[in-house]
Amino acid sequence: MRWAVHLISTSLLTARAAALWPKPQRWERGSGFVRLAEGFRITSSLNQEPPDDLVNAIERTLKRIEHDWHQPLQVGRAEPDRLSVEAAPVLGTLQISLVDEAEVHSIAFETTRPYAQQNEAYKLTVSQDGVAELRANTTLGLLRGLETFSQLVFTLPESAEGRRDHIFYLRKVPMSIEDWPALPHRGFMLDTARNFYPVDAIDRNLQAMSYAKLNVFHWHVVDSQAWPLESATFPDLARYGAYSQDETYSASDVRHVVRYAASLGISVMLELDMPGHTASIASSFSDYIACHNQRPWSAYAAEPPAGQIKLGHSDAREFAKRLMHEAALMSSSPLLSSGGDEVNQRCYLEDPDTSAALEARNVSLDDLLGEFVEGVHSAIRKQGKTPVVWEEMVLNHELGLDADVVVMVWISSANVRAVADKGHTIVHAASDYFYLDCGAGAWLGNTPNGRSWCDPFKSWQKAYSFDPYHNLTKAQHRLVLGGETLLWSEQAGPENLDSIAWPRAAAAAEVFWTGGSLAEGRRRLQEALPRLHDWRYRAVARGIQAIPLQPHWCALRPGACDADEDPL
Amino acid sequence: MRWAVHLISTSLLTARAAALWPKPQRWERGSGFVRLAEGFRITSSLNQEPPDDLVNAIERTLKRIEHDWHQPLQVGRAEPDRLSVEAAPVLGTLQISLVDEAEVHSIAFETTRPYAQQNEAYKLTVSQDGVAELRANTTLGLLRGLETFSQLVFTLPESAEGRRDHIFYLRKVPMSIEDWPALPHRGFMLDTARNFYPVDAIDRNLQAMSYAKLNVFHWHVVDSQAWPLESATFPDLARYGAYSQDETYSASDVRHVVRYAASLGISVMLELDMPGHTASIASSFSDYIACHNQRPWSAYAAEPPAGQIKLGHSDAREFAKRLMHEAALMSSSPLLSSGGDEVNQRCYLEDPDTSAALEARNVSLDDLLGEFVEGVHSAIRKQGKTPVVWEEMVLNHELGLDADVVVMVWISSANVRAVADKGHTIVHAASDYFYLDCGAGAWLGNTPNGRSWCDPFKSWQKAYSFDPYHNLTKAQHRLVLGGETLLWSEQAGPENLDSIAWPRAAAAAEVFWTGGSLAEGRRRLQEALPRLHDWRYRAVARGIQAIPLQPHWCALRPGACDADEDPL
Repeated sequence: MRWAVHLISTSLLTARAAALWPKPQRWERGSGFVRLAEGFRITSSLNQEPPDDLVNAIERTLKRIEHDWHQPLQVGRAEPDRLSVEAAPVLGTLQISLVDEAEVHSIAFETTRPYAQQNEAYKLTVSQDGVAELRANTTLGLLRGLETFSQLVFTLPESAEGRRDHIFYLRKVPMSIEDWPALPHRGFMLDTARNFYPVDAIDRNLQAMSYAKLNVFHWHVVDSQAWPLESATFPDLARYGAYSQDETYSASDVRHVVRYAASLGISVMLELDMPGHTASIASSFSDYIACHNQRPWSAYAAEPPAGQIKLGHSDAREFAKRLMHEAALMSSSPLLSSGGDEVNQRCYLEDPDTSAALEARNVSLDDLLGEFVEGVHSAIRKQGKTPVVWEEMVLNHELGLDADVVVMVWISSANVRAVADKGHTIVHAASDYFYLDCGAGAWLGNTPNGRSWCDPFKSWQKAYSFDPYHNLTKAQHRLVLGGETLLWSEQAGPENLDSIAWPRAAAAAEVFWTGGSLAEGRRRLQEALPRLHDWRYRAVARGIQAIPLQPHWCALRPGACDADEDPL
Repeated sequence: MRWAVHLISTSLLTARAAALWPKPQRWERGSGFVRLAEGFRITSSLNQEPPDDLVNAIERTLKRIEHDWHQPLQVGRAEPDRLSVEAAPVLGTLQISLVDEAEVHSIAFETTRPYAQQNEAYKLTVSQDGVAELRANTTLGLLRGLETFSQLVFTLPESAEGRRDHIFYLRKVPMSIEDWPALPHRGFMLDTARNFYPVDAIDRNLQAMSYAKLNVFHWHVVDSQAWPLESATFPDLARYGAYSQDETYSASDVRHVVRYAASLGISVMLELDMPGHTASIASSFSDYIACHNQRPWSAYAAEPPAGQIKLGHSDAREFAKRLMHEAALMSSSPLLSSGGDEVNQRCYLEDPDTSAALEARNVSLDDLLGEFVEGVHSAIRKQGKTPVVWEEMVLNHELGLDADVVVMVWISSANVRAVADKGHTIVHAASDYFYLDCGAGAWLGNTPNGRSWCDPFKSWQKAYSFDPYHNLTKAQHRLVLGGETLLWSEQAGPENLDSIAWPRAAAAAEVFWTGGSLAEGRRRLQEALPRLHDWRYRAVARGIQAIPLQPHWCALRPGACDADEDPL
């Protein structure tokens, strides 16, 4: 029996990576065990009172340690570890401290600073003789380190006699981790307009994001189908544009989401997509919307219903600026998105107001569009934020946008280089890698053989194989701010949010946290899958309905369910 | 205002079908309303005590009427109906009765009879002056009629004063429905071996099935990855073959599922898939399994781990027969499946025991396979049940199976005709229409561009476009017993059961209940979608995490989100 345990711990276990997701930048580990003391504590050695959200994060971590009840994913689960664990040294405390205590800020403060001033780095060491330390430059770094620590803890169930409590333990000690994100913007976009998500679903998704160290909630909050966002300036927008008065986000809902996200190290980047995708504004301000609900819809919009903010209309432009001003005050990210995808030309050319303006001023549609975008961007900048747009704003139109405008590349990863060549900062959002909704068939009704426009399904493997620097020159690397996983909600709602997003979105999270590429060998699918299984089983234990990526049989046997011929 | 209401009730509402799914065979309806009395009751006018499960079904129906809180899917939801509803006649009772009261049996009894003796037909009438009657030949027919009635009830919320309770009401009265299923076998297959489903998830799925009038739970309970089914004869099977002792189905679990299903008009058809797909038996009876876990797995099995019951091994054959005997006693369907898909030849040819038998007896592999199948089928027949097999048992092997063996066609709908030409009864299970798991990417780990083997995703539209009699001669129509929707669980578990299955599986349910085809025009995608939306919104209200098929905006506007060019 002892021999068997030894066999497992030297072959199978060392062959397996310990279970952390995303993978830390530097990660030295041994082959020993420590078990947590019954009164295990996390102590802060700050000279001053720790901020409330750090105290909460510590309490959450302790709770997770006690409630994950996660056994290692190996045949026999924790059982082969039993003898080693029972003989292991005891770890009484995790000591956390800041490198420089001159300025201790809340996690929320650190999370919502400009990216250049954010610092998520941390160091975590666990020695074989039962000393564990977590150090960081900021409380945000400590938060990331606490998430890492929680993922190191495994559970050994009561022994057969049923007399003792669960034992919580760590494997692979001594362990030393030095960690920081490769890229500062690691997001999850949720479309809450095609179908509505209650705040509790958003909260749950924020939790899942924090387990993967994602740090930006890109909230595509309104669109042509519905306007759920309550505006103090224009209360009629949600009053008439939301699906119902139970399906709105009040100012206090948004404040809650922003605050809760910040406590998890996540900033909220609102998007008010314009001038396209705005048909829902017509319910309250019909004068501002061109081609509203015009048929056939496919001539006027990417999907029904058609409707775009009138470009030549000065009241409409003022309206858009004031809206964006309000959005800037509501959200916490240093970035704010004005959208700008899929602007339909025919909608404008057939609109009497817009065509009159074109003629009267003898300008082009792009001139009007440029003025419009410039207007909303000035409202964004006045609040100290940086504007974000979808790729068409720089690739399909000549608007002369400033170089600091952040561009999200969504149509295809092949367009990344063209955006970089224009000198814009880039957030990856490629539909060919990161669109969670692809591959679920056509959602238009009368199409028996209809496909998703972005077929096929983007598997976790596909997302994981993404190289953020592919096809860029060395000098262009600095333009890459990060990337996002995106959920458009034509065929999604709170019913499938967890299952469509998780654990797939975690694959992208590691791409942007850990960095590197499959080609250069810093990340490998075979090495990643066992860790991703671990993340998924923990997420389920934490209340996320994350789906199994494989039969449980495979999750217990790393490598056993790889394809026989390695395609790489 | 009155004019506006009138406009809606004469144009939009009559243009829309009332919301029933599956669509009844005969369905006459007017344009009036009745509202349910506050003390609305369902009274049975049977001369004898109604069976317990019928009493329960009535109580459930009343509960649903009160708790669905489903408003019509139209702009304004129930509001445009308010004046008509408030002025409508009151319906005090639904009277239910049996045509012939000589033999009143429980729903459970009627559900588990041979198909030729089952009768699910019912008649439901609601008159404009507030009389509603439900009549059927059997309690099972009454159950189907009660489901129909529950789908007719809409909710009008409290008026603005907030003084009155919700009003429950029916539209489209007077209404007369005559209904019966086109086909007797309408199933949902769940694989509980690749990943485990707790009994409460199975129960919830049975409820969803009953909302769509599905009547067969095909329980693919064991497979190569795990053996969760506890056997009294061979307790070691689950003791060593289940994922854990918390992930098994005890005899009492199975009894519960069978009983609960029967109360919902659903029989349980167990499948013990053999001789392939049986590697999990090796954990307890390794002598009976050939090529167990042999690598490379792709040479020996369709997926890892490899393992098949030894054909030439008399103990293994006896073991299989006794297992099948026990399965026959556990399940309630008149059918029982011995599986038989994906038998791997190389596994047997390299197995010393099997090759010795082949040589010693100078027989072919198909001879041995035929003897094996004949053995397990005789165990099935001894319990008065009919054997079911996957298509390979008649298309890939010459086993001389009796004509009454039911064949499930899964590889492709193109194979239906070949099975019919051999004279076998057919259950449709075509992967190109009814596999819920298709299109989710490869589940093998190391495949960045891997596709699901049965790409693309099978949309509800695809399933709905199925014609059960396609490519069959008129004389072969009688061979079609029905069809199933199937969930293989390599990438599924309780986390996504609801969202991967519903409402898609309801599309197939209407194909097999209502019958007809798109080609002959008896069913139409455009007409179906609004009703399917209704089914989905009700299912969500009833606790099923059924996903939205479209933006809510589309669900409120039938036809608005069809493709502009009708592809049919």
